[in-house]
Amino acid sequence: MQREAAVENRTFILAPGGGFDNGSVVDTGKPAEPSSSEITVRIHASSLNYHDYGVVKGPMAPKDQSRIPMSDGAGEVTAVGPDVTEFAVGDSLVSTFFPHWLDGVPTHEAFPTTPGDGVDGFAREYVTLPATAFTHAPKGWTHAEAATITTAGVTAWRALFVHGGLKPGQTVLTLGTGGVSIYALQLAVAAGARVICTSSSDAKLERLKALGAHAVINYRSEPKWGKRVRELTDGRGVDHVIEVGGPGTIEQSMLATAVGGHVSLIGVLTGIQGEFPLRFALMRQQRLQGVLVGSRRDQQDFVTALENTGIRPVLDQHFPLESLVDAFRYEESGEHFGKICVDIGPKANA
Amino acid sequence: MQREAAVENRTFILAPGGGFDNGSVVDTGKPAEPSSSEITVRIHASSLNYHDYGVVKGPMAPKDQSRIPMSDGAGEVTAVGPDVTEFAVGDSLVSTFFPHWLDGVPTHEAFPTTPGDGVDGFAREYVTLPATAFTHAPKGWTHAEAATITTAGVTAWRALFVHGGLKPGQTVLTLGTGGVSIYALQLAVAAGARVICTSSSDAKLERLKALGAHAVINYRSEPKWGKRVRELTDGRGVDHVIEVGGPGTIEQSMLATAVGGHVSLIGVLTGIQGEFPLRFALMRQQRLQGVLVGSRRDQQDFVTALENTGIRPVLDQHFPLESLVDAFRYEESGEHFGKICVDIGPKANA
Amino acid sequence: MQREAAVENRTFILAPGGGFDNGSVVDTGKPAEPSSSEITVRIHASSLNYHDYGVVKGPMAPKDQSRIPMSDGAGEVTAVGPDVTEFAVGDSLVSTFFPHWLDGVPTHEAFPTTPGDGVDGFAREYVTLPATAFTHAPKGWTHAEAATITTAGVTAWRALFVHGGLKPGQTVLTLGTGGVSIYALQLAVAAGARVICTSSSDAKLERLKALGAHAVINYRSEPKWGKRVRELTDGRGVDHVIEVGGPGTIEQSMLATAVGGHVSLIGVLTGIQGEFPLRFALMRQQRLQGVLVGSRRDQQDFVTALENTGIRPVLDQHFPLESLVDAFRYEESGEHFGKICVDIGPKANA
Amino acid sequence: MQREAAVENRTFILAPGGGFDNGSVVDTGKPAEPSSSEITVRIHASSLNYHDYGVVKGPMAPKDQSRIPMSDGAGEVTAVGPDVTEFAVGDSLVSTFFPHWLDGVPTHEAFPTTPGDGVDGFAREYVTLPATAFTHAPKGWTHAEAATITTAGVTAWRALFVHGGLKPGQTVLTLGTGGVSIYALQLAVAAGARVICTSSSDAKLERLKALGAHAVINYRSEPKWGKRVRELTDGRGVDHVIEVGGPGTIEQSMLATAVGGHVSLIGVLTGIQGEFPLRFALMRQQRLQGVLVGSRRDQQDFVTALENTGIRPVLDQHFPLESLVDAFRYEESGEHFGKICVDIGPKANA
Repeated sequence: MQREAAVENRTFILAPGGGFDNGSVVDTGKPAEPSSSEITVRIHASSLNYHDYGVVKGPMAPKDQSRIPMSDGAGEVTAVGPDVTEFAVGDSLVSTFFPHWLDGVPTHEAFPTTPGDGVDGFAREYVTLPATAFTHAPKGWTHAEAATITTAGVTAWRALFVHGGLKPGQTVLTLGTGGVSIYALQLAVAAGARVICTSSSDAKLERLKALGAHAVINYRSEPKWGKRVRELTDGRGVDHVIEVGGPGTIEQSMLATAVGGHVSLIGVLTGIQGEFPLRFALMRQQRLQGVLVGSRRDQQDFVTALENTGIRPVLDQHFPLESLVDAFRYEESGEHFGKICVDIGPKANA
Repeated sequence: MQREAAVENRTFILAPGGGFDNGSVVDTGKPAEPSSSEITVRIHASSLNYHDYGVVKGPMAPKDQSRIPMSDGAGEVTAVGPDVTEFAVGDSLVSTFFPHWLDGVPTHEAFPTTPGDGVDGFAREYVTLPATAFTHAPKGWTHAEAATITTAGVTAWRALFVHGGLKPGQTVLTLGTGGVSIYALQLAVAAGARVICTSSSDAKLERLKALGAHAVINYRSEPKWGKRVRELTDGRGVDHVIEVGGPGTIEQSMLATAVGGHVSLIGVLTGIQGEFPLRFALMRQQRLQGVLVGSRRDQQDFVTALENTGIRPVLDQHFPLESLVDAFRYEESGEHFGKICVDIGPKANA
Repeated sequence: MQREAAVENRTFILAPGGGFDNGSVVDTGKPAEPSSSEITVRIHASSLNYHDYGVVKGPMAPKDQSRIPMSDGAGEVTAVGPDVTEFAVGDSLVSTFFPHWLDGVPTHEAFPTTPGDGVDGFAREYVTLPATAFTHAPKGWTHAEAATITTAGVTAWRALFVHGGLKPGQTVLTLGTGGVSIYALQLAVAAGARVICTSSSDAKLERLKALGAHAVINYRSEPKWGKRVRELTDGRGVDHVIEVGGPGTIEQSMLATAVGGHVSLIGVLTGIQGEFPLRFALMRQQRLQGVLVGSRRDQQDFVTALENTGIRPVLDQHFPLESLVDAFRYEESGEHFGKICVDIGPKANA
Repeated sequence: MQREAAVENRTFILAPGGGFDNGSVVDTGKPAEPSSSEITVRIHASSLNYHDYGVVKGPMAPKDQSRIPMSDGAGEVTAVGPDVTEFAVGDSLVSTFFPHWLDGVPTHEAFPTTPGDGVDGFAREYVTLPATAFTHAPKGWTHAEAATITTAGVTAWRALFVHGGLKPGQTVLTLGTGGVSIYALQLAVAAGARVICTSSSDAKLERLKALGAHAVINYRSEPKWGKRVRELTDGRGVDHVIEVGGPGTIEQSMLATAVGGHVSLIGVLTGIQGEFPLRFALMRQQRLQGVLVGSRRDQQDFVTALENTGIRPVLDQHFPLESLVDAFRYEESGEHFGKICVDIGPKANA
């Protein structure tokens, strides 16, 4: 107990270059006092995204400096600077992916300002940051639930409602059972849309149906699933695709999309370069929109929508901060359904 | 029975100038054979709107010719012209408000082309018209239900989703319990929005809550209901108002609306000219959008949304075609909740 | 000369309650050193708007405190805080109307944060403010020209391009020869639109034609100018109106507007409450959009557009800071054409 | 001369399968009388597009039937059906690419309804069609000028203004000197945008500058022209690309595009399948929008814009109908700058 009292800020630090054997939990000491417009937050939870995976595994890690990983962070305010009026001590907050993109059109490219990539992230107990690096969490949510908002949640929201302008009665196609896809399914159902989902597992397809999917396709038994989607839409195709796969799926996705339809380019699970069926975009006047999370305002709108619709995120396994690498190995297995959680609670064996 | 066999097309005809004592049901004879792109429809139902009321009561009736009133018409296809591919005999259809506004931006002003106003409407058993004057009805709906789509339904749809771009988590204010307002309530709830409703009757407010209203206000006991709406939205105001009242309600409606909010100007129940609080529009950067039903494409999108969300319209009393004037007298009483229906079935006493 | 050296920051201060006899130029002393994200700007010019008029004349002045008026300010950076990267000493800048509305949708109501109204404005030689309270001025512009951007310029820009979505070939109607209207004329012409302008002076109409107006109307000789606008557009009406008049002009403005047209509600020159022809909004599906200047991003986009199109603002008379009240008396006369300028240079008689 | 009198409708007919040696000009006889909503038009001009090239050369030609090629047709009304009110005998008209897509969102895929592809086109003297298959030509234009509108013109218009929402001050990149690119240059300049153009010929680059290009790049001497475009935009990239090249150019085009920028996917000059740099779309949140000409309403808006801005199309060589294949051989050479014209006048040697 004496030793424990000395630990003030358990933090997972990734050594330069990253790698699963290259991180460790250390004490980084008491967080800084908040300046006038800053707040200090006790982080209680984070969640895993493929972007975080790229950092921790190594390819996206800084080569020449260490890094605290994890873009998602949720917790409780423990101190506020004198000019902060938006938050009070005790409020439950969730971090934003682009701390400087507050509203309006995007101006930032890639990740130089993103916590857990270009700057330190939320794999730690305490952080002091400008208040604008957070928003309120939905009322009544656990920290683990709230942590799913930053990356996966806001991405699904922006794809469907900011770029996509989804309307009731339209049809949405989601691919697989990652965090963005499941959030998109839940949001689209809550907005009165029809949703078609794919997965390689019949068991997962059943779970998607339970979440409201109107039709499901096992892409393993149906490798030409684009054609199947068209059949399920009377030959018309879907209005929106949540395209998380990249080069390995985009051809079928575009085949599945209606004339004038909208494809949200979100993921690169199958690579970052590849064949692109330009003729569909042209002949069917389709739109492909690159989506990279969203602004703080998008997150605020999303939180309101979550509170109003009663949607709660689908959580898979929880791992303690000390087992962060195990969490990523589990993500690597592809067994999960929804979000993998990191609990940054009091040290288990303390 | 012999006489009855001779009746081929019972039709309510309003004499020039209109008026409740100035209409009668007569036999207008067999409908014309459909030309190449036309269809013949056996109309089974219509429903009442204030616009129809204005025609039948008189102020909006043609002065110098008789008119078959009623803009809403739903029924079954009995014959199709040789070039018609969209519909087949036996299909259930519903009429459109602007038979020449098929898609895109509006180009028509007021009602010269509107059935039941500038041209003959659907208070009759049979009509032969271009196929484009109808759309499919939602699958499984009764004709009485489908007849509510043409005017009230498409107006609510266009206000919220075409002009308003309603998103989940936004807040909508509806006024009263007419057809447009109740459709707007149902649609907004189905799209994940929060809805505040007003009425002068506590009993009706209970029914609105049962339909999903998140908060209700009795505008009789709370004449400054705009202020009450702000309280219910943490001082922010609502994102959308379905403004069916006109000069008598618009000031409170605008008071109730957030900075950057959207007011759909739909109705003139309290008049067509009046004070307009220009300062709110300016200081709060509000948008006021005149809504006059919508295009055929809007109606098609709306029908798909209805099928997908499972919304069914709220029907009040039914009246046979012969009692059309009684139906309007009932509408005049303001007792109704939802749509008043006209059944154009086989003659009751036949 | 000795006395002059002692004057460090000539400032026009309006006593509580305002009024033309209630202001004076005093020395408010050296400006504060900029903190980390602040800059100090030597203001060289301001320009007059009706909003400033309301403050200085009195009705809109703070009742219980003095105020430095004027929302528009243009000048040169004299010092930058250590964290400021956007600006350097010597840069020419122009102030923003809403220092906290940086991008995206509006969130502020009316003027509590507006310099020259809720907070001190730019009728002074030096000011130290957050860098985000300014944008770059267009390259090569005088300070007097740049000062016209903050209020009049951004209002015209946002009305036409952010809310209005103006396209080449559309028709715009502008009213009178104030700063917003002339900027709107210039912008619309530069964007390939057709512009119709009104004024009560034939001489001014000639000047509007010289600026590119395709047609002009003397509203004194043609009091039903809405009808005349329809004739000039083959009966169709215009796509956009820059409505700066308010209750005294809005009926004719709406008469002049096409089905589906867009009316930017900007001004209240003729009052803030009045008759509003609701029936036009409805029957013609018109949109009325309250416009209250715009965001910092709008101003940045506008500055780029000004540089690219080569538009230069139309300046009327210049007044020194000491004669600010004379400038407003001149504005009161309605004789001006374009913007009335305030020069905040070295004291004339120094 | 006697023989000539017998020729009533010179028509270029392509035999099944197409090919440059597989077409001939024959007399197809007097055009049909217009039915109620039809008109007869004396076609005086057509113009060449790559789509027409694909048909006449063969790959896109119908395999099992002959076809009258050419999507563009301009001429004069010689007869109108009794219900036609939009056009009168003597009016100058231009054909539309999608005769059934009148307004609103696209519903048609590819070319089954396109004149000169799925149905017979305008390589003939006379045609009788529904009035809605045409719009007015800009006033004062020659038929050769008007014929450039149908395909190339409407494509450029829709890309920039319907999908792209181009605003003054934004930057546009055009590739090469085909009809779409030159129209896009002219339109963007007329709308107050900045335009950067590429070509492989310095002489053509000079001509582009004369048309208003603000900067030009010879892509032969500068194969990494995407980087050069970024330099020309202070590292930011352009807001819009008129992407007519396809797989061979899209990587450089996307490199040249700003965060949040818009790429209009128009052409497949270099193929229909290929590498697509998905990472740019994602990291820079870019939008790729397939553009396939546009609706009749788009064409009407475009004609108004042409009349108002005074833009006139850039015409290259003229060929008589009899030399249609020579015209395509010339197009094949890539020597042209702007549109290659086909004159369908009285037979040259008659």
